[in-house]
Amino acid sequence: MIQSNTKTRVVGVNITVETTSFAIIDIRGNIVAESSFATSDYPFVNDYIGVLSEQILTLVEQNGGYESIRSIGLSVPSGNYLTACIENASNLPWKGVIPLAAMLRDRLGLAVALGNNAHAMALGEQAFGAAHGMHDFVLITLSSGMGSCLCCDGNIHFGADGFGGEIGHICAKEGGRPCGCGKHGCLETYTAGKGIVKTAQEIMASSQQPSMMRQVENLTPKVISLFCDQGDELAIETYRHTGYMLGLGLANYASMVNPEAFIFSGGISKAGKWLLDPAREAFDAHVFHNIEGKVKFLSAALDDHDRGMLGASVLAWSVKEYSLFK
Amino acid sequence: MIQSNTKTRVVGVNITVETTSFAIIDIRGNIVAESSFATSDYPFVNDYIGVLSEQILTLVEQNGGYESIRSIGLSVPSGNYLTACIENASNLPWKGVIPLAAMLRDRLGLAVALGNNAHAMALGEQAFGAAHGMHDFVLITLSSGMGSCLCCDGNIHFGADGFGGEIGHICAKEGGRPCGCGKHGCLETYTAGKGIVKTAQEIMASSQQPSMMRQVENLTPKVISLFCDQGDELAIETYRHTGYMLGLGLANYASMVNPEAFIFSGGISKAGKWLLDPAREAFDAHVFHNIEGKVKFLSAALDDHDRGMLGASVLAWSVKEYSLFK
Repeated sequence: MIQSNTKTRVVGVNITVETTSFAIIDIRGNIVAESSFATSDYPFVNDYIGVLSEQILTLVEQNGGYESIRSIGLSVPSGNYLTACIENASNLPWKGVIPLAAMLRDRLGLAVALGNNAHAMALGEQAFGAAHGMHDFVLITLSSGMGSCLCCDGNIHFGADGFGGEIGHICAKEGGRPCGCGKHGCLETYTAGKGIVKTAQEIMASSQQPSMMRQVENLTPKVISLFCDQGDELAIETYRHTGYMLGLGLANYASMVNPEAFIFSGGISKAGKWLLDPAREAFDAHVFHNIEGKVKFLSAALDDHDRGMLGASVLAWSVKEYSLFK
Repeated sequence: MIQSNTKTRVVGVNITVETTSFAIIDIRGNIVAESSFATSDYPFVNDYIGVLSEQILTLVEQNGGYESIRSIGLSVPSGNYLTACIENASNLPWKGVIPLAAMLRDRLGLAVALGNNAHAMALGEQAFGAAHGMHDFVLITLSSGMGSCLCCDGNIHFGADGFGGEIGHICAKEGGRPCGCGKHGCLETYTAGKGIVKTAQEIMASSQQPSMMRQVENLTPKVISLFCDQGDELAIETYRHTGYMLGLGLANYASMVNPEAFIFSGGISKAGKWLLDPAREAFDAHVFHNIEGKVKFLSAALDDHDRGMLGASVLAWSVKEYSLFK
């Protein structure tokens, strides 16, 4: 007798420092049902995993039942796909090495895959978004930090220890700005979050020119980009410098791995032309001559709210189905 | 009836600017017979391909015959595996895009694969040398220029256009030394051939200190490394600076792709500790903290004379057997 495969759904979980979002997602990337809670409410990981398990079970029971779920995917900061652990996350309250996938599997009896946020986003964009059909691309995340995920010949590149793609921590300037990782001059200290604000402060300090930025007590990259839209010259100069550093870093990345495209996601990338025009210029000036003009700069295509969960759902399909009794 | 596969050998051809070496090689990497001639004697590629075909046929007829040969592999400067062409080689007399594999296939009626020298060396070291059993590694070539080949999860990474691995042309210094590629500050202008001599000249010009290097009219990296062995301080300083630039470039490479090891080949790498100790130091100071201490620096294991031909033989096995009549 021929049976139907009844396990046609997975759960995609996107964990950020602030929020945990999760959804039941079908084969074609349709979100059937979703929910969320504050990650930061749970400083202890055992409490966190208890709440996450309960809330997933509740959502599942209300939407098709446990038997319809094949597996779970977790997108987490500092996640290592090869070990299925969170490893030394600098911005989560849970320190050291946390076997989050195994903890969740043991509670729910479902197979669980785990990857870092950039990895999940790359999978999401490859399955359902801007990278569909691409074999060689790099997904770039620009928000409070900078990360990336490299896709080689159709497959995500993890590297020997699962730490591939750490472009945020290449040395962009010898002896440059101190980084949270303990080194100096890391690219993300120029191209993400606080680094952009620091650049704005340096530009203001070295100039007498008026600027709307001078009136704002708590500058953010977003506010600076809004000032760019209004023609504020020092704000534009801030993003010009940011874009230059970004383009130089990406040129070196591209010379090493020759991607078809860079796909940009994250809040900082919303600065659009103020960031990406100077980035493109610096990129073309520094990239290996045989690929000059060949590497595309593209926006991520998925909705920001959905991307992490959809990517986590692709992760969920990548793991073998789990059963104690099969 | 069960037949034996009689095609148990391939021809591996290693083409450098000076010399073309080729050998009949069996499945286990044994060189059955070999020969060579001067590449530089043939400024026209049609003449060259004529001589190469004839000499391969002669060697094959004297050693087991045409029927024993399955296919041919070519290791060439600026070779592109995806197009099987030499593309815009800066140091060969044959300009533009040359379909060398197709030209040889049409003359000999055998399948021909083509890759660049770093690619073939990586395959050779993976099949028979230092990278055997490794899934993620980078082969580095340091001679008149600097090149690399990245192996991702067991497979060579070509990138979207076949130009992956161009570490020699990452920007190591903004607005730095002019490079043959037309850009400025490329890593190989500091870490290979003439770049090392240039560093020595700069160090001599900025110092009053005596040095054996001052007595030599035509300095070479090899001579400088011999002076290091004799304790010449400015020679040691030359390699210290070279190693620093190398280590910094490799740190950024490793942060992006997290290899298990870098495998060094080429004449410059024979400077040994004078180059690699300062390279290791700069590497550890700049690489992403989670892989600090994890990435090995290894010497290539194959004999220099054999490496290119053995690598080309692995290329030869990678191509489908060719027949007009099958």
